[in-house]
Amino acid sequence: MIVAGGQGTRMGMALPKQFLQLGGKPILYHTVASFARALPQAHIVLVLPEQDVSKLQMVLEHFTDRIDMTVVTGGSTRFDSVKRGLQSIPKDSIILVHDGVRPFVSDALIHRCIHAALEHGAAIPSLPVVDSVRMLGQDDQFAPVDRNKLRIVQTPQAFRGDILLPAFEQDYHIDFTDEATVVESLQHKVWLVEGERNNIKITTPEDLHLAESIIAQGKNF
Amino acid sequence: MIVAGGQGTRMGMALPKQFLQLGGKPILYHTVASFARALPQAHIVLVLPEQDVSKLQMVLEHFTDRIDMTVVTGGSTRFDSVKRGLQSIPKDSIILVHDGVRPFVSDALIHRCIHAALEHGAAIPSLPVVDSVRMLGQDDQFAPVDRNKLRIVQTPQAFRGDILLPAFEQDYHIDFTDEATVVESLQHKVWLVEGERNNIKITTPEDLHLAESIIAQGKNF
Repeated sequence: MIVAGGQGTRMGMALPKQFLQLGGKPILYHTVASFARALPQAHIVLVLPEQDVSKLQMVLEHFTDRIDMTVVTGGSTRFDSVKRGLQSIPKDSIILVHDGVRPFVSDALIHRCIHAALEHGAAIPSLPVVDSVRMLGQDDQFAPVDRNKLRIVQTPQAFRGDILLPAFEQDYHIDFTDEATVVESLQHKVWLVEGERNNIKITTPEDLHLAESIIAQGKNF
Repeated sequence: MIVAGGQGTRMGMALPKQFLQLGGKPILYHTVASFARALPQAHIVLVLPEQDVSKLQMVLEHFTDRIDMTVVTGGSTRFDSVKRGLQSIPKDSIILVHDGVRPFVSDALIHRCIHAALEHGAAIPSLPVVDSVRMLGQDDQFAPVDRNKLRIVQTPQAFRGDILLPAFEQDYHIDFTDEATVVESLQHKVWLVEGERNNIKITTPEDLHLAESIIAQGKNF
């Protein structure tokens, strides 16, 4: 499941960020293509805001092969969008939920997540933090935190269907910031697999610039 | 002051990471060149491990213009290395301390840090976190934290000399993870300026790959 809900406000552009061009094709094309390439047998569920369904042709026109894809219109929150996307997915699936604006996910990472989900039920990519990090304290100041205790969490977040589907039957809670937190609220443990630095989430013009650099080398990371 | 203390262990290579090639020149060349370009009048202090001084020619041979630079051998910790580098710097300077493996710092960011240090005494570049983040809790599990409360901290960290120099007269403390924490231990406030996504710290082969992509576009970010 690829969730493309962004509105592009941080980009300062009228077009939602997932439709911005990267190497001459929309970001969302690259994301879908990464999964189609890694998992030719998989079914792709694309969750899109209703007002963006008309822009889908911008993505589809770049595919030469047929893509096995269902398009679902999203809700007002990430939780609601994913919940809608799950409706047609059978319980005995392995389900990967991925951000539409992370185009550089590699085959290796996708397979790492699947294998970990098969073994552990729930798995997410994570990375150590190399920069110093500060956290807002009760005194309204940013104080240093021990970066060795921190992990960055990426997508795809991978789950056995019999774990993910019941978890999304719950009512929404403000702590549900990703799919892993939804599953954990039912006491399921989530396994961490190694993420990838290049698996960036494109949210600012600067990220798009960086992404252009990656794509310009013609490599699929 | 450019601090190039890494040993390259995370790179899995014999050559320290600051000497690895990026676009045909050592990473450290690019870092020094960024400052030489942004601040042609500035004096550069380069802090290097003693065993790496002999490798400096690899960096210097790529400069066509003369570089106003002092080389200082580093200590066993970052704190000690910076302290040694500070020894020849006058108190009425504005001092920027920068990681040797952050080659893509822009002119704009360097000047932003200087201006903020002039106004506020101490300034560091910071960025919001776009990925989800988890923190190791007392139960040995990684639990979600509110990323809106987190800021990534980069370099250059910029200070008025009359603040930074006395701060480094203190004894070393384990909480001194960067220069800002040293200054804060004397109750100085540190101002946050906006950092840059491309100002990456190259610590893994994957980072180097990403850096190659940036340099391949021939742009100076």
